[in-house]
Amino acid sequence: MTHSSPAELSLDLATLILKAATEKAGSLGVQVNIAVVDAGPNLKGFIRMDEALLGAIDVALKKARTACLFEMETGGIGDLSQPGGPLYNIEHSNGGLISFPGGVPLRSADGAIVGAIGVSGSTVEMDRAVALAGAAASAPGP
Amino acid sequence: MTHSSPAELSLDLATLILKAATEKAGSLGVQVNIAVVDAGPNLKGFIRMDEALLGAIDVALKKARTACLFEMETGGIGDLSQPGGPLYNIEHSNGGLISFPGGVPLRSADGAIVGAIGVSGSTVEMDRAVALAGAAASAPGP
Amino acid sequence: MTHSSPAELSLDLATLILKAATEKAGSLGVQVNIAVVDAGPNLKGFIRMDEALLGAIDVALKKARTACLFEMETGGIGDLSQPGGPLYNIEHSNGGLISFPGGVPLRSADGAIVGAIGVSGSTVEMDRAVALAGAAASAPGP
Amino acid sequence: MTHSSPAELSLDLATLILKAATEKAGSLGVQVNIAVVDAGPNLKGFIRMDEALLGAIDVALKKARTACLFEMETGGIGDLSQPGGPLYNIEHSNGGLISFPGGVPLRSADGAIVGAIGVSGSTVEMDRAVALAGAAASAPGP
Repeated sequence: MTHSSPAELSLDLATLILKAATEKAGSLGVQVNIAVVDAGPNLKGFIRMDEALLGAIDVALKKARTACLFEMETGGIGDLSQPGGPLYNIEHSNGGLISFPGGVPLRSADGAIVGAIGVSGSTVEMDRAVALAGAAASAPGP
Repeated sequence: MTHSSPAELSLDLATLILKAATEKAGSLGVQVNIAVVDAGPNLKGFIRMDEALLGAIDVALKKARTACLFEMETGGIGDLSQPGGPLYNIEHSNGGLISFPGGVPLRSADGAIVGAIGVSGSTVEMDRAVALAGAAASAPGP
Repeated sequence: MTHSSPAELSLDLATLILKAATEKAGSLGVQVNIAVVDAGPNLKGFIRMDEALLGAIDVALKKARTACLFEMETGGIGDLSQPGGPLYNIEHSNGGLISFPGGVPLRSADGAIVGAIGVSGSTVEMDRAVALAGAAASAPGP
Repeated sequence: MTHSSPAELSLDLATLILKAATEKAGSLGVQVNIAVVDAGPNLKGFIRMDEALLGAIDVALKKARTACLFEMETGGIGDLSQPGGPLYNIEHSNGGLISFPGGVPLRSADGAIVGAIGVSGSTVEMDRAVALAGAAASAPGP
């Protein structure tokens, strides 16, 4: 999959993604950290909702990086990195990966990766739901 | 100086600070990275304006952390960390400090430190002007 | 096993190894990162094929280092590092090891270790096949 | 300055750049490490010439990253990071910068940054000459 230019993830788009994710978190009644990276992957935007766990700041950042670096949801890495699995302990690479759900690639309308969003602070199911809501804002359907 | 609770820097306030700083950057015609940390200092909010230097992401984050950790503007550390100075090479501590201007403590109306803002991407004078504009939004005067 | 001098893995040989590995990847239709280290183990050569995963850059580098440091294929470490195994979580050492297949020692004609090759970006089976093709170029048989 | 897509620095181009740099080093009679990164900046290609200093491997990698992250030659950073200078000790950011000559941005014909080259192992003047020779191969003039 071709990566798009880091410049293609504008601050306007990142702000839209953060807003969509925050609203989803609000509707679910959870407090989370939300990170958005470009295709680099380099940090583009971040917010910590009030009362979100401090330990989840870095987890959100690493989820976003992981999803971008491997062009898949973080949970997909975790499926492969379990004991006995083909990518066991891959989390030691790239300065630390997070391989449970909550990181989702951001794609443009043509499918190119423009970055990723990482969410952490609630259950992994909730985190993933918030991340997906953010990702949906990056490539509006027809 | 007493540190406030990390909870005291609300997302609403952080958003207000980021907005004030971004508007200042826009009025100056510069593209910068802007980081806001709480009194922890833990990351609360971050934005990278379009075309801001990638290398300045980490510099902005470290300026914010440095200003909070030492309860002073980052340039004040730089005055002390020069060769022959009393804090020579203190930049090696805390996982890396940035000691030139652009990091400014955030204070509540009673003077307590509630966090810090770090700005990087332009000249240090411009970066500092943007950071001060953000910091001014954290403690509205009479 | 005696380590050879770092000088013994010439750039000519490293280039030959990278070429053999790249051709194998091409024939398999996969895009991978390929790293070659000497007996130090210090980086000697590296290429990222177009569209190879960004996250696999560091994995390839760590596979090469791991195979050299432990004088065996990386998958052999993984057999021992599983939960309950004798080297459980050895991946925490040496700044991060990778213990699944794709890292292969390079040996001279007399069996001495002259370095290692690490490949990442496809499945571990494919990565290993590419690495073995590269390693075969380092010690031509009769 | 807009960064181009990491995908835009093809392996073919990176190989051309490495070849031009290596030939320049050969003509100067120096042994160096040469690193090429994309606009990410993520490693794209690397070679260590025979007898190049081991300690210069990481320096070459960091020069390439630094030149890309700050969109200028590494020596330009060093002019600003001296004691008393506006960016004193900025080298502590981004996991370690190198701010003396030998890192040069790579630009496409339209001036967009597509990555950077870093060279280390000889004098900084020689390193820079080699890097410039590599960079010239990335945007052939009329």
